[in-house]
This record gives sequence, C-alpha cells and structure tokens, in this order.
Amino acid sequence: MIYLDNAATSYPKPVSVINAVKDAMTMYGANPGRSGHTFSVKTAQSVYETRAILDEFFDGYGAENVAFTSNCTSALNTAIKGVLSQGDHVVISSLEHNSVVRPVHFLKEKGIINYSVFDVAETDEETLENFRKVLESNTKLCVVTAVSNVFGRILPLRQMSQIAHDAGVLFFVDGAQGAGVIPISMRDMKLDCLCVPGHKGLLGPMGTGALLHNGLDITPLTEGGTGSRSFELLQPDEYPDRLESGTLNVPGICGLKQGIRVVNLLGVENIRKAENGICNEIYYGLKSINGVKLYESNRDENLYAPVLSFNIDGLHSERVASLLDKKGVAVRGGYHCAPLAHISMGTRNTGTVRISPSFKTSKKDINILLNLVRKIAINDFI
Amino acid sequence: MIYLDNAATSYPKPVSVINAVKDAMTMYGANPGRSGHTFSVKTAQSVYETRAILDEFFDGYGAENVAFTSNCTSALNTAIKGVLSQGDHVVISSLEHNSVVRPVHFLKEKGIINYSVFDVAETDEETLENFRKVLESNTKLCVVTAVSNVFGRILPLRQMSQIAHDAGVLFFVDGAQGAGVIPISMRDMKLDCLCVPGHKGLLGPMGTGALLHNGLDITPLTEGGTGSRSFELLQPDEYPDRLESGTLNVPGICGLKQGIRVVNLLGVENIRKAENGICNEIYYGLKSINGVKLYESNRDENLYAPVLSFNIDGLHSERVASLLDKKGVAVRGGYHCAPLAHISMGTRNTGTVRISPSFKTSKKDINILLNLVRKIAINDFI
Repeated sequence: MIYLDNAATSYPKPVSVINAVKDAMTMYGANPGRSGHTFSVKTAQSVYETRAILDEFFDGYGAENVAFTSNCTSALNTAIKGVLSQGDHVVISSLEHNSVVRPVHFLKEKGIINYSVFDVAETDEETLENFRKVLESNTKLCVVTAVSNVFGRILPLRQMSQIAHDAGVLFFVDGAQGAGVIPISMRDMKLDCLCVPGHKGLLGPMGTGALLHNGLDITPLTEGGTGSRSFELLQPDEYPDRLESGTLNVPGICGLKQGIRVVNLLGVENIRKAENGICNEIYYGLKSINGVKLYESNRDENLYAPVLSFNIDGLHSERVASLLDKKGVAVRGGYHCAPLAHISMGTRNTGTVRISPSFKTSKKDINILLNLVRKIAINDFI
Repeated sequence: MIYLDNAATSYPKPVSVINAVKDAMTMYGANPGRSGHTFSVKTAQSVYETRAILDEFFDGYGAENVAFTSNCTSALNTAIKGVLSQGDHVVISSLEHNSVVRPVHFLKEKGIINYSVFDVAETDEETLENFRKVLESNTKLCVVTAVSNVFGRILPLRQMSQIAHDAGVLFFVDGAQGAGVIPISMRDMKLDCLCVPGHKGLLGPMGTGALLHNGLDITPLTEGGTGSRSFELLQPDEYPDRLESGTLNVPGICGLKQGIRVVNLLGVENIRKAENGICNEIYYGLKSINGVKLYESNRDENLYAPVLSFNIDGLHSERVASLLDKKGVAVRGGYHCAPLAHISMGTRNTGTVRISPSFKTSKKDINILLNLVRKIAINDFI
C-alpha cells in the first residue's frame, strides 16, 4: 500500500513511538496523579515530561498550561465553549474543519452566540482585509486553522493574531494540520490558545491531543475526578487539573512524547522541506495531466503545507479515491469534514481527492500515483 | 512491587492486551470512518468489533448504541449533561465519585438543576427506602455507581432501576468499579445508560471508556468531524457518530477488545469469586489486628465487590499508604475522589487506605501486606 492519507493520521508511526506505547503499558502502568505510591508518581512524571516537551515544542506558557485531551476536536470544543458567553460574536475562516464549525454553529443554533465567516483569499493581504471586515464590537473570539485540511493553505497567523488582539479579540488556532508540519510559536505568534492532535504531524498515536493556552480563564467542559482537592464538589481551579477530568491516556501520552522527540530530531523545517518537495512533484505532475483540476495557481511554500486537493473532470472525488484504492494507493475523497472550504472553492458537488504525503513518500510512490491518475483521466483503467 | 491499586487502574495488563495495542498501531493504523480506502475500512471494522463485544458483554441495545469515550468520566459527563434541562431534579447516592458529583454540582451552581443525595445504608432495604424518599415530581434522572470505589459496596441496581422507571425517572449507572467485576446486564437491569472505563475491570489500556445507552436522546457535549454527513453544520443525529467527534483512540480500543476477551475467557463470575476470596482474607486478616478500623460488619459477596477501605488508629490514611509504599506495597490513601462517601462513613478527617487486589494477587502478597499493617499498627516500623 502507498499511504497518502497522512492528513487523517500519520502512518507508519516511528518504531520508537510504538515501543514507547508498549513500554508505557508496563513501566508506567499506574494511574498518574491519583495515588501517592512510587509507581503512580513515576507514571505522573512521565506524563509531565510530555507536557513539558509539548510546551517547549510550541513555545508555550508553561507545562501547567498544557492539558491533555483525547483528540484535537475535544481540545477545540473545550477551548471554544470554555470562553464564550451569551451574546458573544465569533469569527472563523472559510477553511475551518467541522471541529470548529460545528461547535460554533451549535452555539449559534442554541441562541448563545453569533458568528461570521471570512473568506481566505488568493493572497494574504486580501485574507487579512476580509478578516478585518467581519470583526464586530462584540467579537470575543477568532478561531482559525493553521493549515487547511483540504487544500493545505497556510493562514497568516501572526498578522491575524495582531489584528485580533488590537481589537481585543481572543485568538485561538486549530493546529490539526499545522502541528509538527509548520513552525508554530505561541509566544511569537501571540496565540491565546492552540489545539493540536497528537497523531498527525507529531507522529504520536491516535487518541491523543492537547490544549495549550496562555493561562486564560477556560470553563471546563467536563468535571470529575482530578486526583486533587478531592473534597471540593467543584472542579479545582488550577491548571492542568481544571481541564483534565478522569484517567489520562498514559500509553498514548508516552507515545506522543516519543513522536515529538522524533520530529525534533528530524527538525520541523527539514520535514517541511522534504514534504514540500514531494508535494511540488505531485502538484506539477498532476498539472501536466489533461482533465485534472487543481485548486491553486502555484505551491508557494509560504502559502501551502503538504496537503493537496485535485479532481478529475467528470468523476466524483470518491470514485477517483476508490479507483486508486483498488490499485493500493490510499488517498481520501469527499469533503474531509470541511464544508465551508468546498463552498468557497466551488467543489461542493464533487468534493476533492486529497493527497497528503509524508517525508517518507518515495519518488517511486509518486510515479505510481501519477501514472494511475493519468490512466483514470483518460478512462484507461482496468 | 505488590500492586493493590487495581481500582485506580488494573495492573499488570494481560500480555495479549499489550500486544493488541502494539499490533493495532501497525495493522489498524488508518483513521477509521474517515477515508474510504481499504486500510481505513479495515481499521473501522476492528473498532466496530470492539463496539459489538462491549454491547454483548453488557447485554446492551446494539453496537450502534455504544460510543467510545476517553474515560468513564467523559462518558458520564456526556450522558448526564446530554439529557438534563433547566429545572430538572437529579438523584445521586452518597457513594458517588466526583465524576458524577462534580458535573451534577456544577449544573446546580449554574442554576440549571437541583439534586438530592440519598444515603446508601447498611441494608439494601434501607437504601431503597432512602432512594424512594428523595424522588420528586420533577426528578428527571438518577445516577448511581454500581460499586463504591472506596468501600466496594454494591448498589441494588435492579431494584433501584425498577423504582426509578416506575416514577418515570431515567436510570444511569457509573460502571467505573463494576464493569468486568460484577455481572451487569443493561437489558435485564433496565439501565438507560451505562458508563464504563476500559482500563479497570475490563483490562484494557488507560485512555479508553464507553457510553452504552438504550437509544435515548443525548445531546452531545462535543461536536466536530465524524466522517459522516460532512456537509451538515450540525452534528449528525445517528449513533454512534453523534457522540464520537474527532479521531478515536484506535490502539486503545483494540487493546480493550482483547481485554474483554480475556475477561470473557476467565469469566466475570470466576474473577469475582477469586477476588472476593482474596478480599475476604485481607478483610479478616485486618480485622484481627488491634488498632485497625474497618467499615463494614461483614464481606457478604452480594453486598461487596473486591475493594476494601481501612484505617489505623491515630494515623492519616495517606501516612499509612506512604509507609506501605516504602516497603513496595502500592495502595491508595486519601479520599479517592469520593467526598460524599467519606462524609457518610465518618472518614472525613483521615480518608481511608484503599486496597483493591486483582485475581492475580497471591497469598504471599496478602501475608506481606498484613504483616506490614500489623507492624504499622504497633508502631514497629523501620
């Protein structure tokens, strides 16, 4: 199988990550932060190390301001719902995933908030202009993705954050496709909150995610046992306990720690350079095929991360993905849980075929993919 | 180390569970339900098998009515908050864990609901009488634990469920300490909802849990990508998608499947018999030690699951736990995230030392524990 679906989850995981998960199940097998015995303390230390490494990786606001979640979606729900109140206005981009769109839309349907969507345009200047226009006097929060999960488009986070803060608006980032793929510094970019999955660019196992914040006041989405202040009937105020109810995914968290170590060892910039090179080859290869439609005029590496969408004239994206699958190439067709992106890019009827390579994707793999697409495009497919 | 903290998380996990987690990271490494390619479908099938095995294990209402969560706490929060509305009244027992107490108390503090606590008494008859007394005309929901995580006390679920339903009240069970430990049949006991952790009695990895229900209408706590109905801005209505936003913990879920297989192979009744025997030995051993206080007059196996609390006169429970830890015995001291239980049992000042053995606990381990407690009790501890 040629796996080109790394935007869904990265595969294969480094062997050291798999071993870290396995080892954690024996070495760190106690419930961290619950009991005071040595085994539990040792487990808690291992969990803390992952907190610290995440904080360092994203240049965050201290390990205590890193909360583990089960995935990026739960982090986003917690962050978004945890800061909004009746009458607030929210701003999101046209490229948001349903992990942002749906919680925001739900709050609107409940009559709690209102929201506006700004279009991500061909140039960053236009995008920023569109962004400025939708800010209102009661805008409390802006949530944007770092990278579109459909088109790979990178958003101008630094400038947007500046505009948001100048208007007194909180600025949250969905790092689902950006974490481990493009450099993200919370302090440099002045992000109030960053939500990340552990299992994509950070190379950790599925079932991991994190909410990093700058210490702002977030009302938790769940309450429960935290192993702290057991006698208080209300959730403790301290971070990270406030946002971490119930038993953590210790094997996953230990695997994630190793995943980030691998990313650090390789270097985000090196990974990005390699993946951009691969994506460029695919992009220009696809561009040379008659009947293939692409959705950007170039692959400027400042504007695009290694996620690419295309279509073949006259075929639904899922049909194309299914034909590729029959020949052992795993890509994703359809809407990729990002409805607004398809409205704004005019792919509402067909969805797109999404290719998301990794730094391990070989030249041979690329050639096989391109040859298959060529055959499908000329209807020469057995 | 002698591990007697299985109520926090079971340890060691069966080797086959560890292998299942490890294998899942290579064999089921795609994101299930997201892409249509063979690898993703194969992963989704493996996840579905766990759903089906959970449904069968708890005699539930179909695999589609089993939703995976990150732990029992998130399942309880989802279930509780998902059915309550302004003005509702809730009933909980005096033995509830903070995973039930805190969400309910939070809703009360927000002015949304009111709740009453009924005392679990020496006999089931009294308990049921206490339960009946707190039901009000606007009681919407009763949530009780199957087994106290501090004292091992089993609640009369079947009779309570009958009383609740006769009064038109939903009956939810927190299976944190009961799942895999005592037999629980949702259909037989007429449970509307059962929340379970995967990492305790079911022998799966930390980071797993499930919400099983009878198809009732639960408003989700989080919305996001479900891989289904991507174009709808609201969460899909269908179960389990409605309650499962974002990427699932596939390695954990595959490990949980193997954990339940091991439990099935051994048989819940056999496990229970073995663990009750071990607990009885510990109970009567402790009872014979001067200065040791126990909290039940007998260990009737219909009333108690294998979790046991004690104290030593003049010592805080955490001090005792720490002394035992120094000699390599892992137990938990303190409040165990169950404040109401300590108020009702008069252990508010000291907490309790909790012993939770497993079916693997040996006679030798028991003797070491009892000898150490004896030494601590006579202050002969180096």
